[in-house]
Amino acid sequence: MTEISKLGEFGLIDRLTKDIQIKNTSTQYGVGDDCAVLNYPKSEVLITSDMLMEGIHFDLTYTDMHTLGYKAAMVNISDIFAMNGTPRQLIVSIALGKRFTVEDLDAFYMGMREACSKWNIDIVGGDTTSSRTGLAISITCVGEAPKELITYRNGAKETDLICVSGDLGAAYMGLQILEREKAVYYSQIDDYNKKVREAQAHKDEAKLKALREQRQTVEDFQPDFAGKEYLLDRQLKPEARGDIIEKLREANIKPTAMMDISDGLSSELMHICKQSQCGCRVYEKEIPIDYQTAVTAEQFNMNLTTCALNGGEDYELLFTVPIGDHEKIKNIGGIRQIGYITKENLGCMLVTRDNNEFELQAQGWNPLRDEK
Amino acid sequence: MTEISKLGEFGLIDRLTKDIQIKNTSTQYGVGDDCAVLNYPKSEVLITSDMLMEGIHFDLTYTDMHTLGYKAAMVNISDIFAMNGTPRQLIVSIALGKRFTVEDLDAFYMGMREACSKWNIDIVGGDTTSSRTGLAISITCVGEAPKELITYRNGAKETDLICVSGDLGAAYMGLQILEREKAVYYSQIDDYNKKVREAQAHKDEAKLKALREQRQTVEDFQPDFAGKEYLLDRQLKPEARGDIIEKLREANIKPTAMMDISDGLSSELMHICKQSQCGCRVYEKEIPIDYQTAVTAEQFNMNLTTCALNGGEDYELLFTVPIGDHEKIKNIGGIRQIGYITKENLGCMLVTRDNNEFELQAQGWNPLRDEK
Repeated sequence: MTEISKLGEFGLIDRLTKDIQIKNTSTQYGVGDDCAVLNYPKSEVLITSDMLMEGIHFDLTYTDMHTLGYKAAMVNISDIFAMNGTPRQLIVSIALGKRFTVEDLDAFYMGMREACSKWNIDIVGGDTTSSRTGLAISITCVGEAPKELITYRNGAKETDLICVSGDLGAAYMGLQILEREKAVYYSQIDDYNKKVREAQAHKDEAKLKALREQRQTVEDFQPDFAGKEYLLDRQLKPEARGDIIEKLREANIKPTAMMDISDGLSSELMHICKQSQCGCRVYEKEIPIDYQTAVTAEQFNMNLTTCALNGGEDYELLFTVPIGDHEKIKNIGGIRQIGYITKENLGCMLVTRDNNEFELQAQGWNPLRDEK
Repeated sequence: MTEISKLGEFGLIDRLTKDIQIKNTSTQYGVGDDCAVLNYPKSEVLITSDMLMEGIHFDLTYTDMHTLGYKAAMVNISDIFAMNGTPRQLIVSIALGKRFTVEDLDAFYMGMREACSKWNIDIVGGDTTSSRTGLAISITCVGEAPKELITYRNGAKETDLICVSGDLGAAYMGLQILEREKAVYYSQIDDYNKKVREAQAHKDEAKLKALREQRQTVEDFQPDFAGKEYLLDRQLKPEARGDIIEKLREANIKPTAMMDISDGLSSELMHICKQSQCGCRVYEKEIPIDYQTAVTAEQFNMNLTTCALNGGEDYELLFTVPIGDHEKIKNIGGIRQIGYITKENLGCMLVTRDNNEFELQAQGWNPLRDEK
């Protein structure tokens, strides 16, 4: 293990960026000067930035630096796809304290690179600095799209079909499982420590010896993730749905409005409706949900539809298309038509399986609220 | 004072961005969607990103949120000028804990806007989230320049003149003063607390009453900044030298290499020399130093040249020009010619006032080192 201070800032940058290969002609100059230099003579430039804070957006007790790097990159890449664009460059800033080693940073960069190489994205710059407290990550992603293809949130029209890629609620259920196993782990540790304290109080040497032998077993706690791999992957290693964007282009479909689902379906739908000045009607029975999500919601005694509507971080695409595209969409795999756009005064409604109607509530995942 | 959680994430974004006016034609779409949309058909796009962490890059005991917002924006704007570009857009991410109020965020945004409006820059997006610990800020600045005007660090040639704008070492001396007054303040607090504890131990009610009356005076500590205003301003509210870039363009001078001085003159010079594969010779007597910097270095018993060579955060421009531009540079105010570029094998040398030569050392300000 190598201390970061040993390399110094510039030694570190050299190490992290030395074998980066530039893949895009729009990247004129990458890491190594005051700025990166890009070239976009024919397209619009898309740019998005997100900050991820330890203890708020991620928990290093259940993710590792490689996976974290992958996710940090992917969630930003997802924002470029959500505009119907093509991601091209990534800039990463990371602030980390003394408890992190050079190897941790290597792993983080490896994860980021894995995500970037999946979509041919160049890492063109950033900043590595120290933090007195937790780990902080800020990623900026740059992409491009021809002006006529850019899809905003405000273009949905009455009668448009509402579509969703993949399935929803899985990332949220993954988080529940991680939180549960973390709680189990800490309660076993607490339990062990309590027994040690009791044995010490009673000067029970035999008991203490036995406890010392158990210690490793307690530390080596194996969380119970059997059969939940899909949910954990959805939470820890989400995929940006560039494949869906490609399929829509191949099918010659231009969505009228689009965004990625980071805060939950309800919340995102309400954004599209507010910005497009329209209403919507979504059918509970059409919301795509994976089998594992359903089983796990049952185990946790949670309402499945609520999980699918309000669970965040799926990074699936939510978009609207003209009703005439109905057949074309049907022929593309992995997209579900979940409802349609209405006049604004009809509100944003969920039609339940038993044909009741409820107004959608934005209970989207909001880190600011979680801090209360 | 308003709690941030009261507004919610989107209420907050609305409040912070509602009266933003777009000024640049390159800004097609600002805040409000998954990405900002920019348009640069004729220029190269410059992009730079910096992260500022509480306790590492700033200390809220001696800066306020307005000033911090101003500086955070300015240091990024400076990187665009350092490429000989024109800054156009700014994206800001900020993570802050519960101790901050909506009014704090307002002040931060006001400071950023003040910096942006000075250079006609649009705020086009960002991210506001929470932090469990300190304040974290990440700023991305986008700018443009015609391809032929972009100035990298690697273009310096033998015989080129080395030039510096403004004066050096002032921001560093400003920091020394702030640190000194902070230490005085805390020692008075410690002193007061010690007296209270003693009086309590002796149950000396008269003494305790007298101490209670002194309390406000101790809390209202007024730091001694008389005559140091310039140094404090240089540290807390630096200016990006876009005026110098404009003057160079008017005089038809294109620097061969350029960067801004954030880590200290020595360190930056060595970057230019390394990347340009050359050496340099810099004259101690030509390094521009303000009178207040000199007086304060004397008071602190510090070597003035060391402060000017290694003190960071001046955000002045360091650049090289062909020797034929000597007269043109002379006619521009506020630029000093401090030396010249040599062959690589001659090294990076400082020529002292008494004509000795020393190799330059990069002891630049490096937050990673400070963490050791």
